[in-house]
Amino acid sequence: MLKNDTICALATAIGGALGIIRISGPKSFDAVSSICTLHCEDCEANTIHFTHITSDSGEIIDEVLVSIFRTPHSYTGENSIEISCHGSAYILNKVLSMLIANGCRQAQPGEFTMRAYLNGRIDLSQAEAVADLIASTNQANHKLAMSQLRGQFSSELSLLRENLLKLTSLLELELDFSDHEDLQFASRKELLYIAKTIDKRVSELAASFKAGNAIKQGIPVAIVGKTNVGKSTLLNYLLKDDRAIVSNIHGTTRDIIEDVIDIQGISFRFIDTAGIRQTTDAIEQLGIRRTYQAISKARIVLWLIDTLPPQAEMAEMAEKSKDKALIIAWNKIDKSNNSYMQLDVSESLSVPYTKFLRISAKYGTNLDLLENAIYQAADLPKFHENSTIVTSIRHYDALVKAQESISRFIEGLNMGLSGDLLAEDLRLTLTYLAEITGGQITTNEMLGNIFQHFCVGK
Amino acid sequence: MLKNDTICALATAIGGALGIIRISGPKSFDAVSSICTLHCEDCEANTIHFTHITSDSGEIIDEVLVSIFRTPHSYTGENSIEISCHGSAYILNKVLSMLIANGCRQAQPGEFTMRAYLNGRIDLSQAEAVADLIASTNQANHKLAMSQLRGQFSSELSLLRENLLKLTSLLELELDFSDHEDLQFASRKELLYIAKTIDKRVSELAASFKAGNAIKQGIPVAIVGKTNVGKSTLLNYLLKDDRAIVSNIHGTTRDIIEDVIDIQGISFRFIDTAGIRQTTDAIEQLGIRRTYQAISKARIVLWLIDTLPPQAEMAEMAEKSKDKALIIAWNKIDKSNNSYMQLDVSESLSVPYTKFLRISAKYGTNLDLLENAIYQAADLPKFHENSTIVTSIRHYDALVKAQESISRFIEGLNMGLSGDLLAEDLRLTLTYLAEITGGQITTNEMLGNIFQHFCVGK
Repeated sequence: MLKNDTICALATAIGGALGIIRISGPKSFDAVSSICTLHCEDCEANTIHFTHITSDSGEIIDEVLVSIFRTPHSYTGENSIEISCHGSAYILNKVLSMLIANGCRQAQPGEFTMRAYLNGRIDLSQAEAVADLIASTNQANHKLAMSQLRGQFSSELSLLRENLLKLTSLLELELDFSDHEDLQFASRKELLYIAKTIDKRVSELAASFKAGNAIKQGIPVAIVGKTNVGKSTLLNYLLKDDRAIVSNIHGTTRDIIEDVIDIQGISFRFIDTAGIRQTTDAIEQLGIRRTYQAISKARIVLWLIDTLPPQAEMAEMAEKSKDKALIIAWNKIDKSNNSYMQLDVSESLSVPYTKFLRISAKYGTNLDLLENAIYQAADLPKFHENSTIVTSIRHYDALVKAQESISRFIEGLNMGLSGDLLAEDLRLTLTYLAEITGGQITTNEMLGNIFQHFCVGK
Repeated sequence: MLKNDTICALATAIGGALGIIRISGPKSFDAVSSICTLHCEDCEANTIHFTHITSDSGEIIDEVLVSIFRTPHSYTGENSIEISCHGSAYILNKVLSMLIANGCRQAQPGEFTMRAYLNGRIDLSQAEAVADLIASTNQANHKLAMSQLRGQFSSELSLLRENLLKLTSLLELELDFSDHEDLQFASRKELLYIAKTIDKRVSELAASFKAGNAIKQGIPVAIVGKTNVGKSTLLNYLLKDDRAIVSNIHGTTRDIIEDVIDIQGISFRFIDTAGIRQTTDAIEQLGIRRTYQAISKARIVLWLIDTLPPQAEMAEMAEKSKDKALIIAWNKIDKSNNSYMQLDVSESLSVPYTKFLRISAKYGTNLDLLENAIYQAADLPKFHENSTIVTSIRHYDALVKAQESISRFIEGLNMGLSGDLLAEDLRLTLTYLAEITGGQITTNEMLGNIFQHFCVGK
């Protein structure tokens, strides 16, 4: 873990009015001083300075603002600088090149945050929350990331750790006196009580991952139906509601055929099966295959119809959606024959569905009901305002392993195993939980895995 | 021209680790203080503060850095603030919404720079240079923008203005004594000398626009030739040279079928005619039409061949390229029969061309020579290191009108017209030149036209 060199990176996306270059490490002040007219070493912490970046040949590259941060009061904990440049790709490249020529190194993804962790500014779960926070797109996943960044999960874990250490010390006391065979310093009943409390909380945290992951990743909805049944019209209408001041979202990774729509603060990823025109049998087959693929990836299936589907089609749909929430929406109620629409079509549907409703995608009729049905179908557990929800698969894996260990401990207690046999499971539980926040047990490989998904400059 | 309200905008592109929100105007400090835990009014100028943005319901939206700028020492000249947030679209939207709810208004494109102009921080040509600087992509257009931003053009214009005012005052002296018919206070010879100096400089500046525009927009090169002659291979090879640390350039507008390649610091826009396969006559016709369209838009035509073209095709190419620089490159010299290649193919080419060379796009053979030929074909005038080059069509138009007026003045002088008739042309010349830097003659409409092409947040 190199901590003694100085790193630099662009911390903003290209294409804006401004571009921010971040520098951190012992040579930050020297490197920046050597490319501009400022003596950074003489500048006070947390101050901003106007200066020019000048090339070796005396050419003025940019008029910039330089922000000075001094150890330990910086994001990384090291001496750091942020240079606010004009947002030209040429300028930003040039300034980065000059910094590299003056002793800096291009930072790896997430390396600034990794340094913040290595310098003890934040723990590992908080570091991961930084990436989640930047990726957050709605109220729900933002709240989870912010709560994790602010250390709520860390506090929970530290409480569990305290209880585990209490168990351990009680057990160790017993081991120290293990010569006296009949002596049980730790009341097995007390041990069991503490262990069960830990087990319950670890299980709850692990169980919250299903919802946490759905909130973080967005809940996949397959929108299926014939060509011209109004899928695009519906998606466009739902998307229109999703206004944003920041309209052009560059750089966010998104599958091209997915539209993300926020409903009541939760992201739903609409997997469109793209209006395949059913002109030939071969193409029709392809369309059907794509539809089934979309359904298999989804948690909710939204089936748009405008006539009663044939029995065979309904049977097929029932089979494919059997472990999903199926919402059937009869579209184009504006167009259909009114008397026909008065009939309870739902009685003719030989499919077990979660919800049936009539809509007009064109005129927006009943789309509020549809949004509500989709939200309900997501079946998200109710959480208390401030309950901790696990969103990372890494944390979930660690929690599951911790839960297995503490369960074995409890089993051992019940079987009357001796303290030395029990101690190993306690130690494992502690280790797995410590993996989440980092602690002493992190390896370079583990850190590499965690930070490789960060963006450069963070 | 509203100057009394407070504006806010995102100043960076979405998609990075950081997002910067800019606020400027009299209520900047109040607005920001009301959404975070900081009392901005109490903060010193040019200082940075860590704080939380908190919603009305007490939810923490982000942990941010707030930078304080005080009038008149800010970009706009007004009290200003920059908030450095995590780069999440959700967070940035939320913070902007909160600022708007607290008395700010979403800024128009370029409005921060317009305020800098209206508050006398920079003149109009410098304001325009800001947009050019942000859009700059290579050494040449960066240098032009930087020089204009630093006021080189403004100084030139102010020198011309001084000379024009001198002319005017000499003429006015004459007008004041116009009763004395024979009295000519201003030596007509002296007037003529000064006017000709002004005319020469204005003409030079206007003439520099051709090169300035080419440097700013990039020089269009049509790359033509049959399918499979190696156009894509060649473009890919040339693009490969164009390394960048900042590799993903989002948000820069670029025609999809154009590849921009920097050669010796100048941008060349390669208009590819896309490998149309000539399977049917109709499609062949379409391909040929596209090729001719590309040629008509280009300044340089790069014709890739791998066999000697038929006479008719050469005649056609000669006709289409007659006012262009035509470079003929014989590709695939790695493959061709060596003895044939020894022949001087160029003698058989019945086309007037600027340069003929043999290359291998696959192996990169002679591509340095090709790049050099392209650069030479651009026929850019040699400029002195610090000569002023006009890059804006608006400036060019004003210069042309100013030049027409000063020419009429010279003509009038030569014809022996009286001072009162001459004065009008001098006044017009002054007005046209003043349009470039702004001065007292700017209208809202004119400012609107200039700043609408800026990005929001600048």
